[in-house]
Amino acid sequence: MKPIPHQALITTIEIMAILVGAFSGFIEARRKRMDLVGVFTVAFITAFGGGTLRDILLDKRPLFWVLHQEYAILIFFLALVATPLIRTLRQMVSERLIVIADAIGLGLFAVAGVSQAQAAHMPLFIASMMGVITGIFGGVLRDIVCNEVPMVFRDGQPYAICAFFGCWLFIALQYFHFSDDFCLWASAAFITMLRLITWKFELRIR
Amino acid sequence: MKPIPHQALITTIEIMAILVGAFSGFIEARRKRMDLVGVFTVAFITAFGGGTLRDILLDKRPLFWVLHQEYAILIFFLALVATPLIRTLRQMVSERLIVIADAIGLGLFAVAGVSQAQAAHMPLFIASMMGVITGIFGGVLRDIVCNEVPMVFRDGQPYAICAFFGCWLFIALQYFHFSDDFCLWASAAFITMLRLITWKFELRIR
Amino acid sequence: MKPIPHQALITTIEIMAILVGAFSGFIEARRKRMDLVGVFTVAFITAFGGGTLRDILLDKRPLFWVLHQEYAILIFFLALVATPLIRTLRQMVSERLIVIADAIGLGLFAVAGVSQAQAAHMPLFIASMMGVITGIFGGVLRDIVCNEVPMVFRDGQPYAICAFFGCWLFIALQYFHFSDDFCLWASAAFITMLRLITWKFELRIR
Repeated sequence: MKPIPHQALITTIEIMAILVGAFSGFIEARRKRMDLVGVFTVAFITAFGGGTLRDILLDKRPLFWVLHQEYAILIFFLALVATPLIRTLRQMVSERLIVIADAIGLGLFAVAGVSQAQAAHMPLFIASMMGVITGIFGGVLRDIVCNEVPMVFRDGQPYAICAFFGCWLFIALQYFHFSDDFCLWASAAFITMLRLITWKFELRIR
Repeated sequence: MKPIPHQALITTIEIMAILVGAFSGFIEARRKRMDLVGVFTVAFITAFGGGTLRDILLDKRPLFWVLHQEYAILIFFLALVATPLIRTLRQMVSERLIVIADAIGLGLFAVAGVSQAQAAHMPLFIASMMGVITGIFGGVLRDIVCNEVPMVFRDGQPYAICAFFGCWLFIALQYFHFSDDFCLWASAAFITMLRLITWKFELRIR
Repeated sequence: MKPIPHQALITTIEIMAILVGAFSGFIEARRKRMDLVGVFTVAFITAFGGGTLRDILLDKRPLFWVLHQEYAILIFFLALVATPLIRTLRQMVSERLIVIADAIGLGLFAVAGVSQAQAAHMPLFIASMMGVITGIFGGVLRDIVCNEVPMVFRDGQPYAICAFFGCWLFIALQYFHFSDDFCLWASAAFITMLRLITWKFELRIR
């Protein structure tokens, strides 16, 4: 089997994370009773906000969603379809499903962030911060637009902390020269697992 | 008559939009009982916020208001003059006048945004998004600073949607090789008209 | 005595301002009952937010905290230590001490901002605005994240205005060819003094 090139793999992971992010954005915007414009914008900000902030901080252009307008268009049409179906869809989607999708998104985004930061030769601690920023700032910007104190800063759940440990796992695995594939998938899976375990057992850090 | 060059025309439109934006920012900040610093900052953010966000996303520098410090200075002195006159001015300015000025600003900003994005060779859907962002994010950032859920995301009025259709009108007119002047003014006028019509008939989209 | 080079002096001032900013961020986040992630992030945003916004507007990279990851690490460990000690530390820190530390930070940040903007050949009014932005937007972003209308825009205290006058003092001193050292320290001291005097006598500007 031919090895998947590093950049292509990161792109694949980022695409999966974006779709999961948009999904969680839709659900939040619907809960806030926003109109079509709000639903699209909040979904877009939740999906692309973390990565966009990272790219602005790293001064990386063009932005992912500028290069791949198909994702913006996809979210646009999903918003058109989803907005009138609010009540029906809300009943179909359980709290558990949202948490699981969000945990997968956290892992994928954070690992995409730390690997992009390492590709841009950031120092290690900054690279781990960029991973966490990519993982959590979609949700932070969503909460700011929705006029709430960001959930991730106040609920005491180890959400950002899971991403932080996973980013350092990624850095450690890379240091010991594991394959890029393994580093990326193992770290993303680690973050998702850690998030789901801490959620299941209702761990809190104050 | 000598034809007006494209970039000069865009600049003229952007200047008009900025003055209208600052005007609407003054009125909002006065309503929130902000002090002089708040009035200036909110007027400045409302006037330049959308274009600044667009330029950061496109990585375009220097920013418009850095190149033309005279507009920043103008808003500064307007804030100095306007702030002590809050009550008098508020009685003089009717709801209708604010909506009309805002509709003109929306058209001018959105068209300036989509044409700048096309000049930067953005793909079409992204260019239309940049137009909408330029048109509405001054107001969005104003509402975030004023600690409110952005009006444009929740009131169901087709505000961003007017800008969106106007941006696609601009793209279509350009595709059929109409003159730059005609594309810009026709699209801006279309957006302003559409906004005023939907406001007059109290249309809502949910 | 060998003269201190200009850039090195600005860097030294910026470092001092960052430590003071993080300190004030800790106190605010603790007051909001945020968790560890919130305390670190709010301290980080308060310390680096103004300078980061300035650097994004000027398109200056790498960012200060990317070049000097030791400050991010320092704030990280301070957050780890400070968060569990909330109550004890809150009783030890008086209102007066916070105001004084904040006034010193305001002076240092604003002067660092205006001198960086001048080094980037900004026009004078924009340079003074960059100074004020560097001085106040750490606190503005902190208040936005904490879901409050930024204090600096609504309390009528001449906070941003002190920074504004100090930035013009810096520009004037430079115009008359005073040494870089003198320009920087005199302007920073002027801002701190002016802020403390206006606070002591409870001056308000509406």
